[in-house]
Amino acid sequence: MSINLYDHANEMERAIRQSEEFTQLKAMYDAVNKDESARGIFENFRDIQLGLQEKQMSGAEITEEEVEQAQKTAQLVQQHEIISKLMESEQRMSMLIQELNKVIMKPLEELYGSMEKDGNVQ
Amino acid sequence: MSINLYDHANEMERAIRQSEEFTQLKAMYDAVNKDESARGIFENFRDIQLGLQEKQMSGAEITEEEVEQAQKTAQLVQQHEIISKLMESEQRMSMLIQELNKVIMKPLEELYGSMEKDGNVQ
Ligand SMILES: [Ca+2]
Ligand SMILES: [Ca+2]
Repeated sequence: MSINLYDHANEMERAIRQSEEFTQLKAMYDAVNKDESARGIFENFRDIQLGLQEKQMSGAEITEEEVEQAQKTAQLVQQHEIISKLMESEQRMSMLIQELNKVIMKPLEELYGSMEKDGNVQ
Repeated sequence: MSINLYDHANEMERAIRQSEEFTQLKAMYDAVNKDESARGIFENFRDIQLGLQEKQMSGAEITEEEVEQAQKTAQLVQQHEIISKLMESEQRMSMLIQELNKVIMKPLEELYGSMEKDGNVQ
């Protein structure tokens, strides 16, 4: 990788670290981690979500019981003020990353897009 | 998204566009697209790869015949000089993107990593 690109990546890393989105997310994580009960509920929710995702990706069947358990945990999470704030922060951060990626990946988008359409790379 | 972050993303987009990896990839795409036979082989290969990926993700079974067809097309591609150069360029570009992502995503890596380990967000 050229030094120039590496510099840009590092500058961007710093900008993300200083962004309102990231500092907010970090603060919310801190808040959840300091709260024993919130932390337990959140970790349980995350474990269940990851378990279901793995099952889905491996093509395994998801039981009705598992769906119910996931819904119950999701409800607990939504009712919990600190956790739902953390999840809002996560969503904002994830949208920011998506936006940044969209900008950065434009050259490749254009390249692949042009080939898809008519095979001419402009 | 803050103006600062957007500026950084745009600068990075320009740097990627001007990178040796991208200009090389673009030149190879052009070369393949100008060559009717190369273009046909490459598009066929890509269609087969995408088809297999979709099947895999949906959990559908991949037949022995499909595996053989994929191998045959992969061989054709490897033997084709222009296409194999294009695929090398694609791999270099993909490694560059991975490296850049690793740098940019450091703040999030650290945040999630710290929670994973002991629940303290430092
Ligand atoms: Ca075109
Ligand atoms: Ca820690």
